[in-house]
Amino acid sequence: MSNQRYGAGIWHFATYVDRYATDGYGAPRSLIEMIDLAGEVGDLSVVDINYPFPGGETSLEAIGTALERNKLSVIGITPEIYTRQFAKGAFTNPDAGVRRLANEMCNDAANIVRHFGADYVKLWPGQDGWDYPFQVDHRKLWQMSVEGIAELATQNPDLKFVIEYKPREPRNHMSYDSVARTLLGIEKMGVPNVGILLDFGHSLYGGESPADAAQLAIDHGRLFGMDVNDNLRGWDDDMIAGSVHPIELFEFFYTLRKNNWEGVWQLDQFPFREDSVEAAKSAIGFLKAIERALDKLDFEAMQAAQDRQDAVGALKLAREALFSSY
Amino acid sequence: MSNQRYGAGIWHFATYVDRYATDGYGAPRSLIEMIDLAGEVGDLSVVDINYPFPGGETSLEAIGTALERNKLSVIGITPEIYTRQFAKGAFTNPDAGVRRLANEMCNDAANIVRHFGADYVKLWPGQDGWDYPFQVDHRKLWQMSVEGIAELATQNPDLKFVIEYKPREPRNHMSYDSVARTLLGIEKMGVPNVGILLDFGHSLYGGESPADAAQLAIDHGRLFGMDVNDNLRGWDDDMIAGSVHPIELFEFFYTLRKNNWEGVWQLDQFPFREDSVEAAKSAIGFLKAIERALDKLDFEAMQAAQDRQDAVGALKLAREALFSSY
Amino acid sequence: MSNQRYGAGIWHFATYVDRYATDGYGAPRSLIEMIDLAGEVGDLSVVDINYPFPGGETSLEAIGTALERNKLSVIGITPEIYTRQFAKGAFTNPDAGVRRLANEMCNDAANIVRHFGADYVKLWPGQDGWDYPFQVDHRKLWQMSVEGIAELATQNPDLKFVIEYKPREPRNHMSYDSVARTLLGIEKMGVPNVGILLDFGHSLYGGESPADAAQLAIDHGRLFGMDVNDNLRGWDDDMIAGSVHPIELFEFFYTLRKNNWEGVWQLDQFPFREDSVEAAKSAIGFLKAIERALDKLDFEAMQAAQDRQDAVGALKLAREALFSSY
Amino acid sequence: MSNQRYGAGIWHFATYVDRYATDGYGAPRSLIEMIDLAGEVGDLSVVDINYPFPGGETSLEAIGTALERNKLSVIGITPEIYTRQFAKGAFTNPDAGVRRLANEMCNDAANIVRHFGADYVKLWPGQDGWDYPFQVDHRKLWQMSVEGIAELATQNPDLKFVIEYKPREPRNHMSYDSVARTLLGIEKMGVPNVGILLDFGHSLYGGESPADAAQLAIDHGRLFGMDVNDNLRGWDDDMIAGSVHPIELFEFFYTLRKNNWEGVWQLDQFPFREDSVEAAKSAIGFLKAIERALDKLDFEAMQAAQDRQDAVGALKLAREALFSSY
Repeated sequence: MSNQRYGAGIWHFATYVDRYATDGYGAPRSLIEMIDLAGEVGDLSVVDINYPFPGGETSLEAIGTALERNKLSVIGITPEIYTRQFAKGAFTNPDAGVRRLANEMCNDAANIVRHFGADYVKLWPGQDGWDYPFQVDHRKLWQMSVEGIAELATQNPDLKFVIEYKPREPRNHMSYDSVARTLLGIEKMGVPNVGILLDFGHSLYGGESPADAAQLAIDHGRLFGMDVNDNLRGWDDDMIAGSVHPIELFEFFYTLRKNNWEGVWQLDQFPFREDSVEAAKSAIGFLKAIERALDKLDFEAMQAAQDRQDAVGALKLAREALFSSY
Repeated sequence: MSNQRYGAGIWHFATYVDRYATDGYGAPRSLIEMIDLAGEVGDLSVVDINYPFPGGETSLEAIGTALERNKLSVIGITPEIYTRQFAKGAFTNPDAGVRRLANEMCNDAANIVRHFGADYVKLWPGQDGWDYPFQVDHRKLWQMSVEGIAELATQNPDLKFVIEYKPREPRNHMSYDSVARTLLGIEKMGVPNVGILLDFGHSLYGGESPADAAQLAIDHGRLFGMDVNDNLRGWDDDMIAGSVHPIELFEFFYTLRKNNWEGVWQLDQFPFREDSVEAAKSAIGFLKAIERALDKLDFEAMQAAQDRQDAVGALKLAREALFSSY
Repeated sequence: MSNQRYGAGIWHFATYVDRYATDGYGAPRSLIEMIDLAGEVGDLSVVDINYPFPGGETSLEAIGTALERNKLSVIGITPEIYTRQFAKGAFTNPDAGVRRLANEMCNDAANIVRHFGADYVKLWPGQDGWDYPFQVDHRKLWQMSVEGIAELATQNPDLKFVIEYKPREPRNHMSYDSVARTLLGIEKMGVPNVGILLDFGHSLYGGESPADAAQLAIDHGRLFGMDVNDNLRGWDDDMIAGSVHPIELFEFFYTLRKNNWEGVWQLDQFPFREDSVEAAKSAIGFLKAIERALDKLDFEAMQAAQDRQDAVGALKLAREALFSSY
Repeated sequence: MSNQRYGAGIWHFATYVDRYATDGYGAPRSLIEMIDLAGEVGDLSVVDINYPFPGGETSLEAIGTALERNKLSVIGITPEIYTRQFAKGAFTNPDAGVRRLANEMCNDAANIVRHFGADYVKLWPGQDGWDYPFQVDHRKLWQMSVEGIAELATQNPDLKFVIEYKPREPRNHMSYDSVARTLLGIEKMGVPNVGILLDFGHSLYGGESPADAAQLAIDHGRLFGMDVNDNLRGWDDDMIAGSVHPIELFEFFYTLRKNNWEGVWQLDQFPFREDSVEAAKSAIGFLKAIERALDKLDFEAMQAAQDRQDAVGALKLAREALFSSY
């Protein structure tokens, strides 16, 4: 029996708006409702929760109770450093006052992490970057990106911070756009408590191989977390994991196991038009097939094929394991 | 002095939400406020207005007054067939009742077109399409796409309908995704009063050459309208026109002039983080440079270069005209 | 037991050059050697052969003998209207003399089709299009594209011609770039004997859903042939079928079977660095898994899910069939 | 009067083959012919030359004479570590013997650099990477990528080595795929004499902002060279510089000047179907316009706009300078 733990960003169970469906793809939900939906999935052990809490102010106690009745714990807290006040950036906002607000919100999130005994503060600075040619001084922007997070890490040496890089959206170009850029920034920071949360879909649509990105982060000792979903390689579609790229997803998890990486397998999906519990079950159903396929895969033969860089041989091994495991 | 008329979608002057900045990139605005902002631009003659009217119910009279004081008239009405009730599609919704609602909303929009003496009902069925492999029966989906608009055209033979195609967003794939597909659908409809509104940016990020798309629509007698903006070729960024692809923009307008196409030059921009009046002025300033460049361009020499398919020669002529006209 | 017939473009068994490895990825091969390699695959019934024959002049008799000993027949002939003399286009070359040469070569290819009793002349006008903004008169270019093929069809009413569209390469933009554009051109021709050869990979990296493209071509009565491969959605990588996008490949074949389309399943792969026989076997091995998955799939339940546009339900059915069939 | 020096890769003046036009886009040329064509451009001071010398063995003396009569000197030597023998990789080839050959060829190239008093050995390991999921052990592949170049740098401490990164082609994914990844590798090497040659087009189609990439490389002290061209953001089209993205090209050179970077402005174009001298003149003509625009640009005002991250203001300044300078 599998001991693999599964998790999800709590926003998986929210409803969404976009620039067209401004009235939303469904009625708004409270955080408590989202937690109860997460509980319905049946396979989730942990959730990542936005801060400030979505759906209006909610007491820590009410959240704790809801988590408990759904047998969930908190893996991370994601400060919302991408809402209106941060529309022009959090750590890189041209206004020093707004940069201070971002720092404060992240420090508040750090306290929530401590309260729940969670693993990390997750930083996704989606508004930090640029839209237009000539818009920014690239040196200064990158310095602010690096220093803003280094400061947080120094202020909270007892905690871990994870950066979730992404090529773009909502900014046309995000500062932390790739695994290599993020590692370069982290090396610059020179602190031990900042790492990467690797989102499979961000890596894929950024033109990386997610397996290669994971290996690189692991080799730098910085793969602190990960989540999965899928897309059509041109945008962060946040579709159901395995619905488009099952083979690269399998390679990603193969890489984690080969390296004995033993963290939670999390979901970061946005089921705009789907039932969110069903979408989570669909993904986890496929992830369990991947677990079985990993158990079945001949790791030695795969290593030998890779040492020969034998694409056809490696593909055969992967297919045999994966296309018989659902 | 130029007689070119300029226009804009009234949403250019709205504020926006997206899936992250759910509290919006600015305080909500009423339609009347948007019209007054459009008036501030100084060069706009016409606007395209969403229906139901954005920012809450507004009387036709109040709108008329606001338009008049800003010297604006209405070129088109865009029914919002992409909000929550149409999240799973308007003309292609699996629920026949919702398809009926879409038809009704478009007929209501037709009445607003009549009221304002506008040119057309603009149809942008952004939720009509699919997200996942296997999700839809592609034959049925396309039939519904075609029949839904044919029905509207037949119900309103006194009016024009324009389809604004787009590759994707918010759906991962839109039914009316390209100029050729849309023309194929229109030919199927067999009605005279349906045409294309060509969005420069949609064409560009769909992998078309906008100039080629315009020519094809003109050659089928179906270029009923157009609007411009810019993007990074991977998404509908709705940036300021000419900010990234000034040469292809110039080629697009060259094609229109060569064909004596004499409609309004409209803007379809989403200035999420910019002042909307300044963003419109920036675009129109560049469009006026393009007008001057067209006046300067040697059309005969260009035709000769194109008949030779002489890329270097044609580029030289284009550069000489464009890079001296701002 | 399956009666499905398999085929391949004979170039699958060639060696290749590109702009960097100008000395080629292997020693050149004669057509006879390629045919013998095709025979080694064991599952191929038909091949598509380039004309002029690759690897130097070869007698029809020698080819016939080689085909016979490998139990292969010819499905189509592909005139090489994309080599040096056609570098600036075949049907759309600015030089009328070169356009004439293209016509002659295609007529010669038609005679080879008659000789071998093949199904069609395959037209892939890879050099017909443009590279730069302003380079061509788009109306004229498209007219030449359409008229050049209409002429061939009229000259050879006893034969079929298939157009293999592709977004780009070697031209930066090809005239026949998509299924819809090609159908629009074919409708313009007004002849019964021109259809589409749908290349799965071209459709995929052009931003289409190959299943949707196939359905559209079928609904216009123009799906005359098809071939498969795979890619990373950004280029025509011509990788082994099913190696990246197995689910969309499965949907593509599902669509063919649903429509009782009963042609040959062909390969169009370029194994630059792989053994070509092994690469073909790898693909056909997966295609046979897809056959089994189609036999297993509950078509009624799938139709019902699609009628509801139920992504999660449809995905479940597809996974159950596909991920248990290798 | 400008003192800016211009250069070009000598392959700009070659003819090309690709996988379709296997007989080439023109008759083969000798290196001496290419040098004479480079001389015809009139504005070139330096060239980068492939090694082994293209077009057959050529004596160093003959090359020296040809360079002299065309007033050209050598800026770099590019060993051809991407031809048939390196089809499966140079530094990362699974065969240690081939990796040795790559090292030897680069050392030979180093001697040519010394002979001509050139600036650097240029390394473009276009075959080092992977094509398929599961094909390689990503840790080992990256280690070999890094160590192979570190070894060269250590063997030749008197010389500089530059890495020209590129996302892909001919490999589906190249090891040195981006500026950040390359810097990460260089930091790992821990040697002073390895830097980056930044190709504007590689950066652009890799999803970077070339200006940002340049700034990052400069801030790491590693921008050792650069070249320009243009593309449609989806592939390394190697089009004429400024033909598609003039504004981002301007921003790139603005960044260089702002940092007082004073190297040669090189061309890396592949004029497949164009006259190569005309294509070079077309590019340099536009680069001179950019020089004039830089002289005209208000750097202080631009800095102020960038400090405000004011896209509209910065764009206005850029347009005023650029669109009046041709």
